[in-house]
Amino acid sequence: MLAVAQEEKDMIVVMQHSARQEQIEGVVACIRDMGYRPHVSEGEETTIIGIIGHSAPEQLERLEFLPGVDHMVPIGKPYKLGSRDFKPRDTIVGVDGVSFGARRLAVIAGPCAVESEEQLRETAVAIQASGARALRAGAFKPRTSPYSFQGLGRAALEMMDRLRRDLGLVVITEVLTPDDVDVVASHVDILQVGARNMQNFSLLQEIGRSGHPVLLKRGMSATVEELLMSAEYILANNNNRVILCERGIRTFENSTRFTLDISAIPVLKHLTHLPVIVDPSHATGKWMFVAPVAKAAIAAGADGLMVEVHPRPSEALSDGPQSLRLDRFGTLMDELSILAPAVGRTL
Amino acid sequence: MLAVAQEEKDMIVVMQHSARQEQIEGVVACIRDMGYRPHVSEGEETTIIGIIGHSAPEQLERLEFLPGVDHMVPIGKPYKLGSRDFKPRDTIVGVDGVSFGARRLAVIAGPCAVESEEQLRETAVAIQASGARALRAGAFKPRTSPYSFQGLGRAALEMMDRLRRDLGLVVITEVLTPDDVDVVASHVDILQVGARNMQNFSLLQEIGRSGHPVLLKRGMSATVEELLMSAEYILANNNNRVILCERGIRTFENSTRFTLDISAIPVLKHLTHLPVIVDPSHATGKWMFVAPVAKAAIAAGADGLMVEVHPRPSEALSDGPQSLRLDRFGTLMDELSILAPAVGRTL
Amino acid sequence: MLAVAQEEKDMIVVMQHSARQEQIEGVVACIRDMGYRPHVSEGEETTIIGIIGHSAPEQLERLEFLPGVDHMVPIGKPYKLGSRDFKPRDTIVGVDGVSFGARRLAVIAGPCAVESEEQLRETAVAIQASGARALRAGAFKPRTSPYSFQGLGRAALEMMDRLRRDLGLVVITEVLTPDDVDVVASHVDILQVGARNMQNFSLLQEIGRSGHPVLLKRGMSATVEELLMSAEYILANNNNRVILCERGIRTFENSTRFTLDISAIPVLKHLTHLPVIVDPSHATGKWMFVAPVAKAAIAAGADGLMVEVHPRPSEALSDGPQSLRLDRFGTLMDELSILAPAVGRTL
Amino acid sequence: MLAVAQEEKDMIVVMQHSARQEQIEGVVACIRDMGYRPHVSEGEETTIIGIIGHSAPEQLERLEFLPGVDHMVPIGKPYKLGSRDFKPRDTIVGVDGVSFGARRLAVIAGPCAVESEEQLRETAVAIQASGARALRAGAFKPRTSPYSFQGLGRAALEMMDRLRRDLGLVVITEVLTPDDVDVVASHVDILQVGARNMQNFSLLQEIGRSGHPVLLKRGMSATVEELLMSAEYILANNNNRVILCERGIRTFENSTRFTLDISAIPVLKHLTHLPVIVDPSHATGKWMFVAPVAKAAIAAGADGLMVEVHPRPSEALSDGPQSLRLDRFGTLMDELSILAPAVGRTL
Repeated sequence: MLAVAQEEKDMIVVMQHSARQEQIEGVVACIRDMGYRPHVSEGEETTIIGIIGHSAPEQLERLEFLPGVDHMVPIGKPYKLGSRDFKPRDTIVGVDGVSFGARRLAVIAGPCAVESEEQLRETAVAIQASGARALRAGAFKPRTSPYSFQGLGRAALEMMDRLRRDLGLVVITEVLTPDDVDVVASHVDILQVGARNMQNFSLLQEIGRSGHPVLLKRGMSATVEELLMSAEYILANNNNRVILCERGIRTFENSTRFTLDISAIPVLKHLTHLPVIVDPSHATGKWMFVAPVAKAAIAAGADGLMVEVHPRPSEALSDGPQSLRLDRFGTLMDELSILAPAVGRTL
Repeated sequence: MLAVAQEEKDMIVVMQHSARQEQIEGVVACIRDMGYRPHVSEGEETTIIGIIGHSAPEQLERLEFLPGVDHMVPIGKPYKLGSRDFKPRDTIVGVDGVSFGARRLAVIAGPCAVESEEQLRETAVAIQASGARALRAGAFKPRTSPYSFQGLGRAALEMMDRLRRDLGLVVITEVLTPDDVDVVASHVDILQVGARNMQNFSLLQEIGRSGHPVLLKRGMSATVEELLMSAEYILANNNNRVILCERGIRTFENSTRFTLDISAIPVLKHLTHLPVIVDPSHATGKWMFVAPVAKAAIAAGADGLMVEVHPRPSEALSDGPQSLRLDRFGTLMDELSILAPAVGRTL
Repeated sequence: MLAVAQEEKDMIVVMQHSARQEQIEGVVACIRDMGYRPHVSEGEETTIIGIIGHSAPEQLERLEFLPGVDHMVPIGKPYKLGSRDFKPRDTIVGVDGVSFGARRLAVIAGPCAVESEEQLRETAVAIQASGARALRAGAFKPRTSPYSFQGLGRAALEMMDRLRRDLGLVVITEVLTPDDVDVVASHVDILQVGARNMQNFSLLQEIGRSGHPVLLKRGMSATVEELLMSAEYILANNNNRVILCERGIRTFENSTRFTLDISAIPVLKHLTHLPVIVDPSHATGKWMFVAPVAKAAIAAGADGLMVEVHPRPSEALSDGPQSLRLDRFGTLMDELSILAPAVGRTL
Repeated sequence: MLAVAQEEKDMIVVMQHSARQEQIEGVVACIRDMGYRPHVSEGEETTIIGIIGHSAPEQLERLEFLPGVDHMVPIGKPYKLGSRDFKPRDTIVGVDGVSFGARRLAVIAGPCAVESEEQLRETAVAIQASGARALRAGAFKPRTSPYSFQGLGRAALEMMDRLRRDLGLVVITEVLTPDDVDVVASHVDILQVGARNMQNFSLLQEIGRSGHPVLLKRGMSATVEELLMSAEYILANNNNRVILCERGIRTFENSTRFTLDISAIPVLKHLTHLPVIVDPSHATGKWMFVAPVAKAAIAAGADGLMVEVHPRPSEALSDGPQSLRLDRFGTLMDELSILAPAVGRTL
């Protein structure tokens, strides 16, 4: 861990309306005992006590049990290394000539799962011709059902490794478990942490230690703050090559598979210096909505996209309905090349 | 409006890490100009400024625009008359001999909609025999589809009026629009505000003015705090005969129609003195889950229940699948009469 | 109601695995009794029975109670007049020379609430100079708290009426209750139904009858399908001048006030012929996120925007933090005029 | 994998209203080519085609791409081994004399994290005296922040191992990563899969292979169906000693940490034969709401509870605010011993 990375959070203690003077003094004494300086503000009904500067939230939690305390309000952000306060300027994550977070957009495309070397190569050649500079494909697939296709595993990694040499594409794949980090890192350029693993802290730490570039997807029920806390696990292990990815959150709406949180893009760009890309395929779950949502993401300020593409979606072993055909992906790239300059970017 | 009912809320201004001294002084001056007393607490990284006592949140919002301000944190509760701070002891709403909020539980039962006088009377006689003391039935039905059965309207009100005289049951029905408040209030004992109308403020005010007992259902996406704010609209119009009703909130889970927020019962009992009942029928949407959820509500501390019952659910014009048959309702009441004493209540 | 507008929905009855032959025959007989034609498909484990053609979902619900039935699956869409099946071509709602749903985008702007004639006129002149063609402003404000500013009411309507004559702007305001429909309609060009009233069916019917153009905002916990059902209430009353508005849904994420459902734009354009606009101000709740989300909405295919603008947000009586200053609105319009052609639109 | 455990799901193809006869025939032919038997049901507007019996959902997905197809509707449940259809009678998971799923309730209690052998022993002795028969405690803690206390690890396992021998308590702890399954299984009686790992499929498979009893917590945004699919990963690896645990889902409501889905208890008992317990501590996040929610869970039919208890919550290194004091836990157990018989259980 870096020395700088202690969790610091200011805290406000709100006393009950009925709190007596000696209860207020009890809280004040307890805060002093912990080595902090209390700031008491007495109002007509409520008294609040601020604890400002280098406080440890967990230690402070115990104040909540003191007599007369109504509740506590944390002030500030629990992440440090990922915040703009810590590093005001944008981080650009460069991977083999592809930059994430720069003026030029980075588009990653490819099939949900590697099914065969032919399928992967056909897709890679086509997306490269359309202007994508990174290839995504799943080797190990996390599937909701144990009876679904689970991926080709190591054989798929080797296919990706051959393709990146042959075509000069940056290659990205998901890693599911700490034990696999080394072998995956030796075959691909960017490690992906999937939404279901955003809070798999063992995995995050191992990836942090690897120093390998990582694409961290937001969990389907994770807040923006929790996404930044998960990034902090990687950053605190001295790996600052982190790319964030919004991919839809779970809501009551069921006309799409998830609900893409479009506002998360400007919110993240406001809070953090890390690059932010968007996955419109998993967010919507239906190919026909991928292009409009992809364009929206770029207009909202995303630094790039990750799009599912398949030469024959109707034969895909996984997630066919949300995959774009190669020609439709080409059309989307054409549309993005017109849109990008209108929002100050290039493709 | 009552004189006591001014909105008061304390507020904390959190300055940016980079805020300069003159920016802090600018905020302090602005707070003084508004007539409030600022409390400055300077930490190593952050400065916060408290505004304690009789502050008006809307007026304070403008501070957020001052240079150097990061964000603002409101402290305290925006409702007053409904809070336990204002009135620590439980309110018991008594309606014609039935008490809501007392040790004895109050069970309301009946069909979703009045379909005929025979159906209503058959149900009323049966639920009364089983121990229910209030009859619910819909005269005006708010339906998602304009093509669905919309209720018998005024004719249904008259049937309810006759029944309450004949059987001595307390009668409750939903009122949809301010214009109908008077006529509904003259036919039934308790006005119901449905979940879709929880923030129909014109309706709330009119009901407040009527002084009639009211059952206020929580909106399907309303927070507990918003429910208490809606109650405040009625209380502030000098009507304190308000019964709250938890009936399920909207979440991603789709095995039930809504997700009953069981924790809302102890949370509400902690925050407010008003009685709280639960509607397990709309929450689950399926009759087979009504009894377990009804028992859970009582175990969690609810003051009563509102249950949909129909003599022949398979012929109901509305919400049949969530209605209990008369015999099943009788069984539930038997089970509740065993459960109630085990949690310190009677039935 | 229009004759065409009967609710029709096909239905599938799924039998239990253990269902016996006579139970299947019982369901078949019941369907025939209702006047429908059953289609039995027997599998190795499950038998399903389809009911295709002009069936009434409510009547069919009772099948769920027959012995051997596991559950029922509705097929198809419960709305008719609003669907693309009923009318494949886009509806363009024209209001005094401003078209909603046409190639040219329609931008509505203005303050949350009318505070004074000066404030309204200053805003109107400025937004018109920036290219907006419609003015929004609240006369009757639905406020969560009874202690908040509730709007100037009728006086505000008269100011809006004068302004539309003087400046030739289309004017829009919210109507809260059926009784107000006539007076509001006589002062403004478009009636707005707010999110909290999306399922205020009395109000929808009255607006339907008025024949006045209406902007229908999606409820904060309403599905896309429920929004279309609410539109159906207006359409079925013979008023087809309906504009839909996405304004954010309620989710667990709290870095913005609501979560704008960006995918709802292409989903709605796919399902309905009605125009769709977006309100980025209420969705985000913070002015700094309004411009990126507004641009995203246009890139996703929205037909227009409704943006909160205030000459001095720090003095606004309502929703100041989410209002754009006049100069920032001007900048947004400049950006949109560059963006629009890149997605095949004009401003 | 067990031979029985093929994923089988029936499927309905819904054709577009405008589908032509040759398109319907095309779909029929394609289904026959896949080796299935299509059942065509033609209505006045819609034609649907059923595929009944041993169909593989992924293979069928491609039908969605055929011309004329509107959408597809899956029928049935994607889990098999966990369903009541597969095994109608309740599974009782017996662990060293403690039965989960039997008439007698099983209560697990203990601190969030092991902090010292004294703290653990003091808690264990007290909860045993109060009637709990299993001790929970965290050795490896998954923390949102990398700067929070991460647990004592292996040393904690050894303390738990000693305690179970000394006191005869069943001991349970969370395992975070596949590599740790063996060592954890050799020290404790029940492996816990935390909410954040519910879809860590590598971990589920490894635990399945271990044959060790497992407590599987529902993910905070997982549906009931997804929880059952995760259980299926363990069951399909020939380990049927699975206990399910509802612990609250993520919603917009923020007065509690999560929203306990009380209806999930009867829903799960209806769908699966596996035992279901409830964690009221994580669900509410506040000790004062733990007892009412715990009682509600038992009243709703839960087979047991897992409650956080700490001798001095105000000094807890983790989750103090939601921990019960030892005396308050004793009171809860007293209350449960009165409640249990009222719902047909014993404690």
